[in-house]
Amino acid sequence: MRAVDVIIKKRGGRALTPDEIRFVIDGATQGAIPDYQTSALLMAILLRGMTAGETAALTDAMVQSGVRLDLRGIPGVKVDKHSTGGVGDKTSLIVAPVAAACGVPVPMMSGRGLGHTGGTLDKLESIPGFRVNLSLDEMRSVLARVGCVLIGQTHEIAPADRQLYALRDVTGTVESIPLISASIMSKKIAEGIDALVLDVKTGSGAFMKTEAESRRLAESLVAIGKASGVSTEAVITAMDAPLGLTVGNALEVRECLDVLKGEGPADLVTVSVELAARMLVLGAVAADRADGERQARASIASGSALDRFRQIVEAQGGDPRIIDNPARLPRVEQREIVRADRGGFLSRLDAELVGRASVALGAGRDRVEDAVDPAVGIVIKARPGDRVSAGDPVLELHVRESSRLDRALGLARQAIVIGDQAPTGTPLIVGEVR
Amino acid sequence: MRAVDVIIKKRGGRALTPDEIRFVIDGATQGAIPDYQTSALLMAILLRGMTAGETAALTDAMVQSGVRLDLRGIPGVKVDKHSTGGVGDKTSLIVAPVAAACGVPVPMMSGRGLGHTGGTLDKLESIPGFRVNLSLDEMRSVLARVGCVLIGQTHEIAPADRQLYALRDVTGTVESIPLISASIMSKKIAEGIDALVLDVKTGSGAFMKTEAESRRLAESLVAIGKASGVSTEAVITAMDAPLGLTVGNALEVRECLDVLKGEGPADLVTVSVELAARMLVLGAVAADRADGERQARASIASGSALDRFRQIVEAQGGDPRIIDNPARLPRVEQREIVRADRGGFLSRLDAELVGRASVALGAGRDRVEDAVDPAVGIVIKARPGDRVSAGDPVLELHVRESSRLDRALGLARQAIVIGDQAPTGTPLIVGEVR
Repeated sequence: MRAVDVIIKKRGGRALTPDEIRFVIDGATQGAIPDYQTSALLMAILLRGMTAGETAALTDAMVQSGVRLDLRGIPGVKVDKHSTGGVGDKTSLIVAPVAAACGVPVPMMSGRGLGHTGGTLDKLESIPGFRVNLSLDEMRSVLARVGCVLIGQTHEIAPADRQLYALRDVTGTVESIPLISASIMSKKIAEGIDALVLDVKTGSGAFMKTEAESRRLAESLVAIGKASGVSTEAVITAMDAPLGLTVGNALEVRECLDVLKGEGPADLVTVSVELAARMLVLGAVAADRADGERQARASIASGSALDRFRQIVEAQGGDPRIIDNPARLPRVEQREIVRADRGGFLSRLDAELVGRASVALGAGRDRVEDAVDPAVGIVIKARPGDRVSAGDPVLELHVRESSRLDRALGLARQAIVIGDQAPTGTPLIVGEVR
Repeated sequence: MRAVDVIIKKRGGRALTPDEIRFVIDGATQGAIPDYQTSALLMAILLRGMTAGETAALTDAMVQSGVRLDLRGIPGVKVDKHSTGGVGDKTSLIVAPVAAACGVPVPMMSGRGLGHTGGTLDKLESIPGFRVNLSLDEMRSVLARVGCVLIGQTHEIAPADRQLYALRDVTGTVESIPLISASIMSKKIAEGIDALVLDVKTGSGAFMKTEAESRRLAESLVAIGKASGVSTEAVITAMDAPLGLTVGNALEVRECLDVLKGEGPADLVTVSVELAARMLVLGAVAADRADGERQARASIASGSALDRFRQIVEAQGGDPRIIDNPARLPRVEQREIVRADRGGFLSRLDAELVGRASVALGAGRDRVEDAVDPAVGIVIKARPGDRVSAGDPVLELHVRESSRLDRALGLARQAIVIGDQAPTGTPLIVGEVR
């Protein structure tokens, strides 16, 4: 088999066989196929597409490039949750302890923030001492003991994805549903989970800007999960405005603690409970979605979810005192308030622009090698739909370096749109694919 | 400017600006842009296309990557001829001395054979002593003295094309009309010519298999030539069967000598005279095509074209004795005759398969680094349309290594189709673009 022939076949719009896909993925990963051939193939895939069968074979080849964890020694149906990335999206830190408290083992591998979206690992690392880089043995041990573990992707997991993603990033081949799907699902399948709930974001702050695109991605992801024997379903949720009232790592951890203490904002609670309920059903501890929701809310009301979060923090080396005293989380003193420049209704609070403002303050990264400041970020003082008077605070910027302020303020101001009429509310839960 | 943004723009089907095109070509040539980005862009170009304006800008950037010869010191309108490649296509060796004999200076830079098609340089090098690798100074001097020079592309000419072609060859990005056009025309424009006649082949033995594709390529080539100030026109000629009666380097030189002596086969003479006549018109020595044809034929009848060929051979270090005594050309003794296996009409003699049979004998190369045997090849004993009886010779293979015979015979037999009715003749000159 020759790589150039596989490229020419895909270029012509024909479906590749599983053998051909395995040949190119193995070759690309092991260096037998040079990057210039791989990138030409990636572009042909982006422009010509892949069938569901090809995408499943691609995912499988990427899983096979590393180890697929065997968690059968741990009792229960292992369930993970994955979000396609948004602004202020901190549901992982909520649903993991909630599901674990309800009896579902959650081996969760997450990523870091990139571009305007945040990442679970960066948020967790704002907890002093918290270690996300556990070995696979440590991971198993924490999962067995606590029922939940929150870690980063180890080098053993889908190494082909890491290599391909680095190449896609610089060759204009990121925005392909088959490639995105295989990248996400290869890592999830390799975790050794039995079931997966996907939160596919849609809207200005998401990678997929329209509901149709988000649905296509959700369908692709669910099909791959099923083809690999992982019970998978997806919820499509709105990402036009940030989720919750905070954007930025320690700020978001603090908000998660609020939710786990029964004091969180409604939108964040709604999405978290929706995802957790589905995890409980797939995890076979709830009879149906309504039962799942009831159990999830009960775990918060009883304090068992918060207690489980405390156990996770302790087991992974973090300082558990942040739970009762969130002021121990990293913080900065400097505040800059962005106010309404006129009266009316806050008709829009653009998620992507708020995300970019937060990155500008240092909370995120534009390049993978950039460092992240755990303390900075943005607190949302007015939500879309709120009536505001001129001078009312809308965004509160938590600032460390004044030199970063100009750019952040510019983006934050751009994110705010005030109109004369209350905006028509759009649903938070847009749809599902199962 | 970032290469990835240019890739994404082209991926989206948008037209690149001349600045963007120059940026990527300069970057790719000078190593600032890695091959994996270049190949992703090439695939996006292949699948999304380029406008005429983009193709002209691409050609220009490739010309600018090297030197554009200045031949203004040599009097007359400098005219070249270029063929897109066929089997048995030896017209360069005929039209160059014919046009020169009629007073048109011909600075011809040619290529080598690759795949099933032959190359002018390989044919010339079958003449003992003939040097195709002249320096640009030597080239100028021969052109000034003899009115014609036949050489290979020097390193100064469009180096970007060499690099891009090497990458296209291994990344499935050869078959793109804009990329093919820019590759051909950048080399021709850099030669410093004033006018160009293109012979765009169409049919089974050509890169472009259909007349519509060939016409699109011809239109693209002519548009680029005009945009660069080179008077350009194209003839579309049939390449379903080999042109003339020989395939293989020395065999083809011998056939060219036959044509220059007024004894060539009709199809080869027709195409050669067609091309030469157009060269004479563009070169401003003939009033119109008919006058050009008359002058071209007269140069053959008078022996002046043959005499000019002798001067070229002498000026470039070749043994001129081959002209009066073609038996001095390299030859092999072993013959293998492929005969008609039934009576009827020879309805097809597939150009590509005859070409591949000749390559199998050693006359051509599958990889650029392969050596070529000047003596081996195929003599055509029956032409499409000829009535044959079972056992009549159709192809005569000239063989050096018996080990190569099996494969060559298999291909040669496959090339022959005998039917019950005479095939309907198709025109040799299919169309023109000017």
